[in-house]
Amino acid sequence: MTKFQVTILGCGSAMPTTLHNPASQLVDVNEKLFMIDCGEGTQLQMRKYKTRISKLHSIFISHLHGDHVFGLPGLLATLSLLGRTSNLNIYAHKEMDLFLDPFIKYFGNQFSYKINLIPLDPHSHQLIFENNSIRVFSFPLKHRINTNGFLFEEKESPRHIKREMIDFYNIPFRQIKDIKQGADFITENGNLIKNEILTTPSVPPRKYAYCSDTAYFPEIIPYIQNANVLYHEATFAEAEGIRAQETFHSTARQAAEIAKAANVKKLIIGHFSSRYNELDELLNEGQTVFPNTALAFEGMNINIESQ
Amino acid sequence: MTKFQVTILGCGSAMPTTLHNPASQLVDVNEKLFMIDCGEGTQLQMRKYKTRISKLHSIFISHLHGDHVFGLPGLLATLSLLGRTSNLNIYAHKEMDLFLDPFIKYFGNQFSYKINLIPLDPHSHQLIFENNSIRVFSFPLKHRINTNGFLFEEKESPRHIKREMIDFYNIPFRQIKDIKQGADFITENGNLIKNEILTTPSVPPRKYAYCSDTAYFPEIIPYIQNANVLYHEATFAEAEGIRAQETFHSTARQAAEIAKAANVKKLIIGHFSSRYNELDELLNEGQTVFPNTALAFEGMNINIESQ
Repeated sequence: MTKFQVTILGCGSAMPTTLHNPASQLVDVNEKLFMIDCGEGTQLQMRKYKTRISKLHSIFISHLHGDHVFGLPGLLATLSLLGRTSNLNIYAHKEMDLFLDPFIKYFGNQFSYKINLIPLDPHSHQLIFENNSIRVFSFPLKHRINTNGFLFEEKESPRHIKREMIDFYNIPFRQIKDIKQGADFITENGNLIKNEILTTPSVPPRKYAYCSDTAYFPEIIPYIQNANVLYHEATFAEAEGIRAQETFHSTARQAAEIAKAANVKKLIIGHFSSRYNELDELLNEGQTVFPNTALAFEGMNINIESQ
Repeated sequence: MTKFQVTILGCGSAMPTTLHNPASQLVDVNEKLFMIDCGEGTQLQMRKYKTRISKLHSIFISHLHGDHVFGLPGLLATLSLLGRTSNLNIYAHKEMDLFLDPFIKYFGNQFSYKINLIPLDPHSHQLIFENNSIRVFSFPLKHRINTNGFLFEEKESPRHIKREMIDFYNIPFRQIKDIKQGADFITENGNLIKNEILTTPSVPPRKYAYCSDTAYFPEIIPYIQNANVLYHEATFAEAEGIRAQETFHSTARQAAEIAKAANVKKLIIGHFSSRYNELDELLNEGQTVFPNTALAFEGMNINIESQ
């Protein structure tokens, strides 16, 4: 099966601590690295966890708070030192250019590669990237400033054609590709054989959803429905529910409510407030509502599995 | 004696590695922290080595290469999260505002404190800061862009007045302060007693010099003469002498030649190229010319001692 793995580089929040780095993670799909958010020290974390900077494909920025973007200057400069030549697409809200343009003008005027800023729509659900392996969708979250979540969805793989049917109907090689894509087959005698007889369904496409930072926001449920893994922020425990509301963050219980309502398979909570040295309270709170909840940690690898 | 200690937060160079962080250090003079350079991850290093962010007094930036400044956005944002109210002076070349202004406009418009950018003169030796304990001087280095070195010089402490002279000449209490500052004393009979008879010299003021990044540049010697500790970059070993010359960096031997010619007491070399996993070659090269050479490392504390 195609590689589909998430590596957590940072799962802390605004105030860095010795326990957690600011937000960043890598989604590895078929040996291409898609970065989500890029807090300070992200490139150092990539080295620490031995991820391959040369495989970085593009960067998706959820929102323009410092703990999600301050690692960009260093990472972008290092890519040039390493001699990158392929364009780098950065998907972010358009205000990013206020911060990025002066940086590129001053530090990046001799970069070895080109940076394209691709603006995110903060108000609608959109397909923002597609290649042979995946589609990436973006959708609005609810935070103090424009913030988007992301869904990485594997493309449906071709149906499996049954070997015995190829032999039985004497199906020519040139038609096999179409049948795998769902076409029916017409025999030499003119009989139509329905595709369902010839093939079995492919494995259901896997999905990974990223929702950080956000207040409790059930409007996202249709966009993340049935995801194999949901990463949802849980900055606070319920005891800090008022603080969560004021700052447009979620509690662990709220993250778990979203996971349950969206029928995801697994929930990873992160973006922990610096006030928590121990995270048991958050984990217990999440598991009470949604048993398959786990805590994110720096260096965590999550295989996105079908089941 | 007044505290005068340097803590190395990062002594790597442009390309970060798992061994070294980009440039930053703290000079602690009498419980005030003066930061020199601020590479990416500096605020994380401050936490790791338990330095007190609340004691940060001001920041001195040697030059505007990314590995010396990309930690500023995160650090400046954190200072606001922590509720700093006192102004923060950043001493840097004037081009810094091209990078810093857009950042402050976008991320810092609600900062709890004010940032003052104080431009460095890249061409002359200047006193740039003075308080009760120290003076800080800046002077030109030789690099690919405008770069300054810094000298932190303790202020001369008052001379020691001899107890027996106070008794012998019956010196009134109100005159003691002046005599400690060098004044003579006139007895009741009108005899002038020279200050040298009444006092002994104070301990010589201590000096710490920072020279990074720079090619071999003997013109700096008058500015760092007799420093108790010199931190000098040694990006390369002599075997990479041509590369050092091309990139306006120094070899370890060149750093040691400067230390020797300037008659400093101790040399710390740093800003190591990412090509070196082992630093023995650099250390040996330095010690051959200047025996009291040591390698910088992250977390190193250097007490600036009189002898």
